[in-house]
Amino acid sequence: MKLATIRTDEGTRAARIDSGGYVILDAPDVGALLARQDWSDAAASAAGETRAVDKAAFAPVVPGPGKILCVGLNYRNHILEMGRDLPEYPTLFAKFAEALIGARDDILLAPESPAVDWEAELAVVIGRTVRRASEEEAAGAIAGFTVMNDVTMRDWQYRSAQWLQGKTFEGTTPLGPVLVTPDELTGGVRPALSLTCRVDGEVVQRADTSDLVFDPVDLVRYASTIVTLRPGDVIATGTPGGVGHARKPPRYLSAGVTVTTEIEGIGRLENTASAA
Amino acid sequence: MKLATIRTDEGTRAARIDSGGYVILDAPDVGALLARQDWSDAAASAAGETRAVDKAAFAPVVPGPGKILCVGLNYRNHILEMGRDLPEYPTLFAKFAEALIGARDDILLAPESPAVDWEAELAVVIGRTVRRASEEEAAGAIAGFTVMNDVTMRDWQYRSAQWLQGKTFEGTTPLGPVLVTPDELTGGVRPALSLTCRVDGEVVQRADTSDLVFDPVDLVRYASTIVTLRPGDVIATGTPGGVGHARKPPRYLSAGVTVTTEIEGIGRLENTASAA
Repeated sequence: MKLATIRTDEGTRAARIDSGGYVILDAPDVGALLARQDWSDAAASAAGETRAVDKAAFAPVVPGPGKILCVGLNYRNHILEMGRDLPEYPTLFAKFAEALIGARDDILLAPESPAVDWEAELAVVIGRTVRRASEEEAAGAIAGFTVMNDVTMRDWQYRSAQWLQGKTFEGTTPLGPVLVTPDELTGGVRPALSLTCRVDGEVVQRADTSDLVFDPVDLVRYASTIVTLRPGDVIATGTPGGVGHARKPPRYLSAGVTVTTEIEGIGRLENTASAA
Repeated sequence: MKLATIRTDEGTRAARIDSGGYVILDAPDVGALLARQDWSDAAASAAGETRAVDKAAFAPVVPGPGKILCVGLNYRNHILEMGRDLPEYPTLFAKFAEALIGARDDILLAPESPAVDWEAELAVVIGRTVRRASEEEAAGAIAGFTVMNDVTMRDWQYRSAQWLQGKTFEGTTPLGPVLVTPDELTGGVRPALSLTCRVDGEVVQRADTSDLVFDPVDLVRYASTIVTLRPGDVIATGTPGGVGHARKPPRYLSAGVTVTTEIEGIGRLENTASAA
């Protein structure tokens, strides 16, 4: 099953995306839908008018997550090619909901940063409340997966030792277009899917999501040791090599450049950078 | 004016704390109150039964802030005594709302960490939506100040380069007991108040909040460059020297130990560490 949050004239609405179009669900967004214990049955059984997906305006798939947890270095090949040891623990940092944009929205280039970079990522969406989850509970708490680009102001990221300020500029981080439940994905709750990021059509990142050091189930377990995870919370699982900041010379986004972030079997974000 | 969020049999309620007791306001908590444009007038003019403060059960003064921003190294004397240069930019990191507890609640010692430490801090509570605030707008966006202890799992803080995981364990971070509006505080929106932290009665931290490198107005301006600040958002302004981790040998909290965090003119948190 595929779910999305669609912008309508009456505000956002959760929707089920079928092959022939989308059906509006009885919830204002996917976050609110997931807060219902029966979300899966309710979404699967909903009927109604089928509308054309090509006219859908996607909001962030969860517009207001209670928490957005992001993971640092997590792609094995990239860590090894950098000559580093694999980490013992995940690196976790936060992003605030104000950073999120929809799958076709512009990435806002704040005038305060000339160093805006891409980071294509697989994101986990939580569908059940868990704390100190066992492996089985962690797997069961995953509602599904979506695509994020953890767009980063590199100069602000490195102004201090803590990355938050470069990670949470308003209107920078596409999330969507859809949530896909694990049963529809190769690898299930540990997806094995091709992830790519293109900048104006040129492939800049390419990886397989099976190459994560800490896979989605590991991450849900680990994070839930620290804090209760709730429906709609998002965990972005980290980005592979190929970011613009690591190039010599570095390459950053400028107005008019389009970033396409795609995960096989989930969908594609297509966002053009634009002066804020 | 002093505001608090009080636990009642019918859930939490915002309250105005007067010299003779407290009056319940028409909002479930201080965060919801601050979301009203007329919050100051509404709170000041509310009438009703006056109840005894000594029987009040304090929830976190804002139980569910949209954002909690925390500041790293920010006390001038402490930075200089460590032989470091004063920072050019604030160090910002996040804490999630699940970490918050009330002013008399127990600090939950997670079994996963033997290294739980104290960090007494002045916290700013936002009362007006602002983005890219001028100095005047930043000052006007400060609803008031409260007390936080940014209790930290030091082992988890340093598991990776990013501190978040040691900063946001559930049920660890007292916030309150009250919000005090700037007009009642020495220094106003740049408070000059004595801050102390005691562990089982022994003074372990003592500073003056006028010693901040980045004062509350600076921090509101800076953070609002990155992201819109909204009513109920919290900015914790950093802790002075005297944390347990810096001692030789280090000193951490154990079950039964009481941490008293006090800021002159605002109030006192009194929290006993307890096995989770």
